[in-house]
Amino acid sequence: MNKLVNEFNEYRQKMNEVILEKDNLVIKRLWNLDTNTYAPGALEVSTKEMLGLVASMVLRCDDCVKYHLGKCHELGITTEQVYEVFAVANIVGGTIVIPHTRRAAEYWEALLAEA
Amino acid sequence: MNKLVNEFNEYRQKMNEVILEKDNLVIKRLWNLDTNTYAPGALEVSTKEMLGLVASMVLRCDDCVKYHLGKCHELGITTEQVYEVFAVANIVGGTIVIPHTRRAAEYWEALLAEA
Amino acid sequence: MNKLVNEFNEYRQKMNEVILEKDNLVIKRLWNLDTNTYAPGALEVSTKEMLGLVASMVLRCDDCVKYHLGKCHELGITTEQVYEVFAVANIVGGTIVIPHTRRAAEYWEALLAEA
Amino acid sequence: MNKLVNEFNEYRQKMNEVILEKDNLVIKRLWNLDTNTYAPGALEVSTKEMLGLVASMVLRCDDCVKYHLGKCHELGITTEQVYEVFAVANIVGGTIVIPHTRRAAEYWEALLAEA
Amino acid sequence: MNKLVNEFNEYRQKMNEVILEKDNLVIKRLWNLDTNTYAPGALEVSTKEMLGLVASMVLRCDDCVKYHLGKCHELGITTEQVYEVFAVANIVGGTIVIPHTRRAAEYWEALLAEA
Amino acid sequence: MNKLVNEFNEYRQKMNEVILEKDNLVIKRLWNLDTNTYAPGALEVSTKEMLGLVASMVLRCDDCVKYHLGKCHELGITTEQVYEVFAVANIVGGTIVIPHTRRAAEYWEALLAEA
Repeated sequence: MNKLVNEFNEYRQKMNEVILEKDNLVIKRLWNLDTNTYAPGALEVSTKEMLGLVASMVLRCDDCVKYHLGKCHELGITTEQVYEVFAVANIVGGTIVIPHTRRAAEYWEALLAEA
Repeated sequence: MNKLVNEFNEYRQKMNEVILEKDNLVIKRLWNLDTNTYAPGALEVSTKEMLGLVASMVLRCDDCVKYHLGKCHELGITTEQVYEVFAVANIVGGTIVIPHTRRAAEYWEALLAEA
Repeated sequence: MNKLVNEFNEYRQKMNEVILEKDNLVIKRLWNLDTNTYAPGALEVSTKEMLGLVASMVLRCDDCVKYHLGKCHELGITTEQVYEVFAVANIVGGTIVIPHTRRAAEYWEALLAEA
Repeated sequence: MNKLVNEFNEYRQKMNEVILEKDNLVIKRLWNLDTNTYAPGALEVSTKEMLGLVASMVLRCDDCVKYHLGKCHELGITTEQVYEVFAVANIVGGTIVIPHTRRAAEYWEALLAEA
Repeated sequence: MNKLVNEFNEYRQKMNEVILEKDNLVIKRLWNLDTNTYAPGALEVSTKEMLGLVASMVLRCDDCVKYHLGKCHELGITTEQVYEVFAVANIVGGTIVIPHTRRAAEYWEALLAEA
Repeated sequence: MNKLVNEFNEYRQKMNEVILEKDNLVIKRLWNLDTNTYAPGALEVSTKEMLGLVASMVLRCDDCVKYHLGKCHELGITTEQVYEVFAVANIVGGTIVIPHTRRAAEYWEALLAEA
């Protein structure tokens, strides 16, 4: 697995364990709910993941962006589609989104390189 | 037309005119570009409008939310689908998104009442 | 009941009903979880409500501020204590928090006037 | 005086009094410091007020924007210059700044109408 | 001293010196005021530090979070209490706070490991 | 060239190429427009770059801050002036801007060391 992708997943996994073993009920339930949010419903899973991606991008959360890019890649969303999501994020959120778009673009290349 | 919808559209129209007559090139081009962003491409227009909606909602811009709700309504997006967009926004952006969800819900009812 | 307090509570109540009748599971669960978050635990309820207040204030969510001010008032938190929460919010969040502090101060006076 | 300008100034004045009579030392000092920030120094006052304006605009604080627009108007900053500040804010902060630009444009017209 | 804690403190110390030697009066006074904000008053110091922590967390400022975690640790706030602060931050600020919670959790473990 | 400055410029250059070769029209136009925004007009270029700097700082975008610091340095803006911009950003945006001010101060020293 690509180094960038691997490092992200490993740190995420390790710290999730540290947090969950503290057994805070609110945090545990919020995380479960987070998973439910992206389940199929009136909208397709791929649409929901793109919604999660654009929301993460305008809020400028690099790790959230990486997570949703991983999901988008698994779901077969194309590079052209991902860049249209990036475009919406850049227009709505302005040029402060550009540095996050750079890191998102780097991560997307890493996901593509894995295949 | 519904009062809430009407007031939003009228104020928007009136102030856009005030701004555009100042002839600032950067602002004019950004606004053109904004329109292009939601044109059909690798993603459908309805998907793009939902992306614009969720981005506006997590950034807590009530007027932007109203604008994209209007577009979603025109495009035939259902109430159930709109609420799934609201759900993503509430989970990603947290409970501070709730008051904006209330105003969005009110505006959506107004749009439905117009038909 | 004071007009300002009353209007806030009525609109909140009315729109919560509109939203909940749509039966979106994620939104309903998040709202339940929101209630649990401020239940007594390792921290007292009054501490948690002040945490909710300061978080709402730096995120500049006027309606969230009003909600937590109402709770703080019910719990007997003093004016001097509330202003120390305001002070933390103003220092951490900067002078953009000042207009929200004005509206929070107005609402706090309304709550005091009710007694 | 113009109604919009007048209402803003009166509410601001009234609530500042409510807050300051509570005698919270941190808040009082921060407000003094706020005044010092825009005093002449290595940068001119007009430059500093435009810095305050663009910062308020990208942070989407309508009341802060109004305050700095008032100062810019007093200092003789032109409409063309103010719109270049708006342009920077719209590009850096994205289209979510547009609704705030509308309200800023409306307030600027009100300031111009006063003269 | 733990490596993570040490690196944070050293960089902070070094850069504070670089900044303060420039002798900008506004910055110096703001920093003094910041210290005063968390002094004992109508609220206890430990409550104020938790207010600073939750505000930093919802604003997603990792270094601010580290600073307040250090203070919370010195004041004897328990792991269970710190996680209740994290829970408020995650509910109010949403899932974009999760990556910051991971880094906060890692830093808290580092503080615990020092004892 | 200084290591810190060099790394920033190289990564920025490399990722801009990755993004631009995807040929997304909206992103390309936004980037062009970004360049136009800081061209001479009713305001001088140096004023516009300081506007870009303070906007980036209150929005806490480290890479955007670095970019505008580089431009400010090229334009001969003095250390004292740059710190007055930092002061406005710290007052408007609050103490959460401090960690970004540390990194900005470090980068400014790196730019000065290059000459």
